[in-house]
Amino acid sequence: MPKILGRSIVACQTVAADPGAEVFGSFDPGRGRPTGRKFQAATDAEVDRAAESAWEAFGVLRSIEPERRAALLDTMAERIAALGQDLIDICSEETGLGTTRVISERERTTNMSRMFARFVRDGSWCRACIETGDAARKPIPKPDLRRMLRPLGPVAVFGASNFPLAYSTAGGDTASALAAGCPVIVKGHPLHPGTGEVVALAIAEAVRSVGLPPGTFSFLHSGGTRERAIGERLVKHPCVRAVGFTGSLGGGTAIERMGRERESPIPVFSEMGSTNPVFVLPSAVETRGRDIAERLVASATNACGQMCTCPGLIFAIRNETLEVLERGLAEGIDAVEAQVMLSPGMRDRYESELERARGVSGVEQRAGGVGRKIAGGRDDDPHPVRGHAGLLRTTGATFLKERQLREEIFGPATILVVCANENELKRCAAAIIGSLTGSIFAGPYDAALAGELQKIIELRVGRVIFNGVPTGVEVNSAMVHGGPFPATTAPHTTAQGVMAMERWCRPVCWQNTPEAALPAELQDANPLGIEREVNGVRRRDRLSGEARAS
Amino acid sequence: MPKILGRSIVACQTVAADPGAEVFGSFDPGRGRPTGRKFQAATDAEVDRAAESAWEAFGVLRSIEPERRAALLDTMAERIAALGQDLIDICSEETGLGTTRVISERERTTNMSRMFARFVRDGSWCRACIETGDAARKPIPKPDLRRMLRPLGPVAVFGASNFPLAYSTAGGDTASALAAGCPVIVKGHPLHPGTGEVVALAIAEAVRSVGLPPGTFSFLHSGGTRERAIGERLVKHPCVRAVGFTGSLGGGTAIERMGRERESPIPVFSEMGSTNPVFVLPSAVETRGRDIAERLVASATNACGQMCTCPGLIFAIRNETLEVLERGLAEGIDAVEAQVMLSPGMRDRYESELERARGVSGVEQRAGGVGRKIAGGRDDDPHPVRGHAGLLRTTGATFLKERQLREEIFGPATILVVCANENELKRCAAAIIGSLTGSIFAGPYDAALAGELQKIIELRVGRVIFNGVPTGVEVNSAMVHGGPFPATTAPHTTAQGVMAMERWCRPVCWQNTPEAALPAELQDANPLGIEREVNGVRRRDRLSGEARAS
Repeated sequence: MPKILGRSIVACQTVAADPGAEVFGSFDPGRGRPTGRKFQAATDAEVDRAAESAWEAFGVLRSIEPERRAALLDTMAERIAALGQDLIDICSEETGLGTTRVISERERTTNMSRMFARFVRDGSWCRACIETGDAARKPIPKPDLRRMLRPLGPVAVFGASNFPLAYSTAGGDTASALAAGCPVIVKGHPLHPGTGEVVALAIAEAVRSVGLPPGTFSFLHSGGTRERAIGERLVKHPCVRAVGFTGSLGGGTAIERMGRERESPIPVFSEMGSTNPVFVLPSAVETRGRDIAERLVASATNACGQMCTCPGLIFAIRNETLEVLERGLAEGIDAVEAQVMLSPGMRDRYESELERARGVSGVEQRAGGVGRKIAGGRDDDPHPVRGHAGLLRTTGATFLKERQLREEIFGPATILVVCANENELKRCAAAIIGSLTGSIFAGPYDAALAGELQKIIELRVGRVIFNGVPTGVEVNSAMVHGGPFPATTAPHTTAQGVMAMERWCRPVCWQNTPEAALPAELQDANPLGIEREVNGVRRRDRLSGEARAS
Repeated sequence: MPKILGRSIVACQTVAADPGAEVFGSFDPGRGRPTGRKFQAATDAEVDRAAESAWEAFGVLRSIEPERRAALLDTMAERIAALGQDLIDICSEETGLGTTRVISERERTTNMSRMFARFVRDGSWCRACIETGDAARKPIPKPDLRRMLRPLGPVAVFGASNFPLAYSTAGGDTASALAAGCPVIVKGHPLHPGTGEVVALAIAEAVRSVGLPPGTFSFLHSGGTRERAIGERLVKHPCVRAVGFTGSLGGGTAIERMGRERESPIPVFSEMGSTNPVFVLPSAVETRGRDIAERLVASATNACGQMCTCPGLIFAIRNETLEVLERGLAEGIDAVEAQVMLSPGMRDRYESELERARGVSGVEQRAGGVGRKIAGGRDDDPHPVRGHAGLLRTTGATFLKERQLREEIFGPATILVVCANENELKRCAAAIIGSLTGSIFAGPYDAALAGELQKIIELRVGRVIFNGVPTGVEVNSAMVHGGPFPATTAPHTTAQGVMAMERWCRPVCWQNTPEAALPAELQDANPLGIEREVNGVRRRDRLSGEARAS
């Protein structure tokens, strides 16, 4: 593994040590103490240099043959895989996430990079569309029109605390932006700066090895009192043309506002919190309530509940069999051991959010270790930053009345909402706020209710799941990882699959343009052999000469 | 033609006369006097009723077979065509636009409606994408995932003053929203309320005749002191889920801000001003300067310069042959007769914008009637609201220095910017602000410069045109009618072609969902026979049983 110097990588080069720069340390939540490693926060001059060199690189990136970008993505995947156990160790140390989880997240990260490489090679992602001209048309000649998606320019990526690999330095935002032809500047996350630096060095090597301009990629260490200033300078820099953010509602909306209040506004794709409501219908409870409870407990407490798709709300209807589900959830939550959380700050926020929800009149604590914490000492070992799973319980009526229960509690907690009847369940479904997912567990006799419910939640979520838990986001083009506000600031997109590339692009049309002046994707000759819509028909062939003549 | 009652149409029903409602009149700019017709501005209660009934209709619209929406669009086209000469007359009277122009705009409007009907029937607009599951996959089973675009909900449409048909009541925003499955509420434009009402009645008839819910369409008369309140109430109404706006920069940005500052933000697609820069390169000037000048004069003064794609900036390089272009422009502009403008307010704003530009140090008036107006009386006949074409002239250096010259002058004026050399021309190109179009006239020896220029303006416009004028927006899917801010607030979209429908949608994914609970577009049986991407391959067939089994 490359040595961690604690310095930013600007235009693929590690910056010099700067005695005047602010320094921040990283933390080991599993041991509950600093790692001892120090990182030099990026200076304003480094931010500017990253943005300006990205702009310069963009001139090349947007014009080169797509194969070069595909090669970069494949090479990134290789280099990251080659970091081996060292990457797993530092990532696990900085985040408290178990090595199994970190390994699977690394696989997912390299899989995404390779997937975007395939999209680039396939070429249909750019939605090339050609309407050939007709000089003889009356009353006016028909112009030759050719449209495709073109990249916006340098993209700033704000990685997530909870996905140090798959939604961070080399994550989906970075890979999809590079795939589209946009240089990337990553604002490092202070909770995993060592992980970020190591991955960034692997990307920088990949950029160099495929011979792309160094400004294609930069990574800026960010933490301490400099963190906000670095982010703001990046989002407001005239060379930055789009932003990808994964994190909290507060951060995501603030950065989105910053982007659109620029003199020349830029799009900000923020993925934020999500409650991921689950509806367990009566016949499902009756036939497999215990099994569903087990799956929900595992999903809600996976990675200590620090996944964007953890189920935070479970709705069911009060009846004689509900006890099976409720007891299953309670026993499951009670059995979950306290797990390491990402940071003391996350743990404290989790506890206070949970406490606030528990304090709502009509909400009771049904299971979990929350009570112990409130009573006094955290647990036997004072050092690790641990989060205790919790199960709250309330009624549909209380849920409808208390708006704060609609908001996410980030951590291993879930709220069971017991509704009086089908009608109240539907009203609760209509009251949920925008979420990444919504799940319905339906048994043999639930089809009618499931159908109605599905229509309600379709308007509020990005992904509707039948008989499954929301965690486990499959990586392919049919996946939608997005949803209405406040799940994201851009419900028209998804952070997964081929549509993720479209976030960094806009359509441009060329009218009556000579062959040589057209992008390769739109030329008669179709030198890339991509699929295009030509006069309404999809084809991969070249256009015959007469098309151009008209 | 239906009788104009001067009353709004809420949920396809003309509202009752309300003696307490505010009344405003329409104006005949060709005669320079009120038409005598009075219109009852929509009340708050009518706005609410329109929005609520639209929400109710949405429940039906989003679930019915697509053929019903296609039939609505076809019927709308028929009914509007059937309005015949009466529509042409009232539209021409209210806007001062000539009957030839109004007729061609009506053709365009009905063509768009029929085009969206074809897109709905074809079905590929919804981008259906299926990844079938694999229960045997290790380490975890692959889920069945199916994604498509789904409608957002009721759309509020703010029509344009300058396109009373094609970008108004039954214009592209309305047609594309209905096509996508979104009910529409049109805020009528006070400059052509009679036209709006007549078209709205035709749409209401079409809705009734195809048996869709009445809330599918409403039209709200808006004018006088009520105008702002009606617009605001509509944009902020919880049942309204997206907005289409065509108009001024001030109006478009204000409404966009209103949409995103809602508790639950909604997208606002504003198409605003545009300078539509034109670059006439040396060899083009030399070989056909006179012809180009004629085409540019016609394009700049078409419809009295009140088109969103009129060329407002013409860049050329100073040399011995430039005089041909310049004299051609000047003589052409001098020869253009004063034409009726849309309203006295438009005329006054045009004159003050032109005067302001003319007042910039380094800018001179090269041709046109502007001077006469400044000298005193408007022209011989005091009544018609006329705009006089104007040609200003300045240098590249002045253009680069004076930022106000980058902004649109809405009316029949254009500025010739004479650059010292190629380098200055390129710097001017890099200084233009976001625009719908950018045109390059290139002659036999201009290829290198044209290529460089094209790369610069591609980043700043929605459509790059070679050897053609920007006016004349072809109606098909390869067209991009959009562009970076301030041309629009949503550069990632276009108001033309199949992508225009995507503005009113977002992707939704269904995971492991039973056949009966899926939208028809995603069912194994593919009952609509639409093209779908299935495991990476586009096909129109049904899926075999084994796909579902996994």
